[in-house]
Amino acid sequence: MNHSTQDTLDRLFAVIESRKPANGGDPDKSYVSRLLHKGPNSFLKKIGEEATEVVMAAKDADHGGDRQKIVNEMADLWFHGLVALAHYGLTPQDVAAELARREGISGIEEKALRKAINREVEKS
Amino acid sequence: MNHSTQDTLDRLFAVIESRKPANGGDPDKSYVSRLLHKGPNSFLKKIGEEATEVVMAAKDADHGGDRQKIVNEMADLWFHGLVALAHYGLTPQDVAAELARREGISGIEEKALRKAINREVEKS
Amino acid sequence: MNHSTQDTLDRLFAVIESRKPANGGDPDKSYVSRLLHKGPNSFLKKIGEEATEVVMAAKDADHGGDRQKIVNEMADLWFHGLVALAHYGLTPQDVAAELARREGISGIEEKALRKAINREVEKS
Amino acid sequence: MNHSTQDTLDRLFAVIESRKPANGGDPDKSYVSRLLHKGPNSFLKKIGEEATEVVMAAKDADHGGDRQKIVNEMADLWFHGLVALAHYGLTPQDVAAELARREGISGIEEKALRKAINREVEKS
Repeated sequence: MNHSTQDTLDRLFAVIESRKPANGGDPDKSYVSRLLHKGPNSFLKKIGEEATEVVMAAKDADHGGDRQKIVNEMADLWFHGLVALAHYGLTPQDVAAELARREGISGIEEKALRKAINREVEKS
Repeated sequence: MNHSTQDTLDRLFAVIESRKPANGGDPDKSYVSRLLHKGPNSFLKKIGEEATEVVMAAKDADHGGDRQKIVNEMADLWFHGLVALAHYGLTPQDVAAELARREGISGIEEKALRKAINREVEKS
Repeated sequence: MNHSTQDTLDRLFAVIESRKPANGGDPDKSYVSRLLHKGPNSFLKKIGEEATEVVMAAKDADHGGDRQKIVNEMADLWFHGLVALAHYGLTPQDVAAELARREGISGIEEKALRKAINREVEKS
Repeated sequence: MNHSTQDTLDRLFAVIESRKPANGGDPDKSYVSRLLHKGPNSFLKKIGEEATEVVMAAKDADHGGDRQKIVNEMADLWFHGLVALAHYGLTPQDVAAELARREGISGIEEKALRKAINREVEKS
């Protein structure tokens, strides 16, 4: 496809925003409105569920399962994550900015690597 | 920020790709190379962990906690999700395409809404 | 109540065992038979879900929510864990034995404490 | 082993209770005291982590992995669940009572089966 990830995420996030009950979203007609109307536990629970399903799909792929299942579950995980961001007045740009902020990607790596190495050391 | 989400995600994903041991990534220098070298359980475990941390940060925000914590944990969740995609030969574009594919966003909504309503009915 | 946790877990586990399709359990009549008939993903998914629900109920209790919700979600988590043990030919006694085996409880503590302290150190 | 599950769980829970800082537990010497001293997020996070590790160990067992890994991860999951119960002034007996309370095991089954069947119907 030609559309970038950003195109899709932005479009999806704009729709999610428009489905907030405060923006006129109707819980009887929209799944997102319904989740937002029911409150945080409804979509936070889904984040835990979908993360587990990503893990299971990945383990199945390790043993010959269809990798498209990983894509499907990751899509569900991202989707409900965007709903959570919308609820809390946050945006996918905030998350992207945080990823960029960490002193550049090498910064993320350095911090995480230091922690990982220390963890190895502690096991020895 | 001026960078779009995709700018950051694309750049991050390209870096992750370059850190695959097969692409010359060094597990002693790069956290991502290290995760990829250790194998799926190392980053799949993180997906479960970070999802739980997103949920906790969100619940804390419900009660006055700093919303930036949600952003930080979501960044961790996305980051490890991208590592998983890279490992399985998938891309963030695959996930975005799946989100777009579902007959448009209204399609997602209709399917999910029908399921949610049925769930309510079954509880009554 | 007078019954011990063990009484209940043992009774519950014996029922779960009897619901295995191989033992005559009927997926049309028993939820456990149904889960076992559908295969591991059906109950493993529930373990991830219920763990998230325990976490949410606990966070809600931190802010005045009903603690009984924690009990309910933990019951769901244990229940599906027992189903998983049954499927894999394991028993709750195996888990208890592992807990006892770790050189006594102080053994668990020492190992975990060492790791926790090292984690603190690495953050400093 | 001769010890029943309850022997171990009861003994373990009593030790956990004794490690509460309010009961004289020392965070510098005891992992449990440390978790309880740090507060809920420290052990709730572990519940999410260990649930994911149970799922991964189970998926690995599906494909020839050592089932003892499931036992080890379930032991970790139960252990941190007991720490959470202690923190919230709850007991494993409360969880067992809830399991018993649900109108007997057949009650659990009936309720869950009804929900599962409805879910199937809604997919058709």
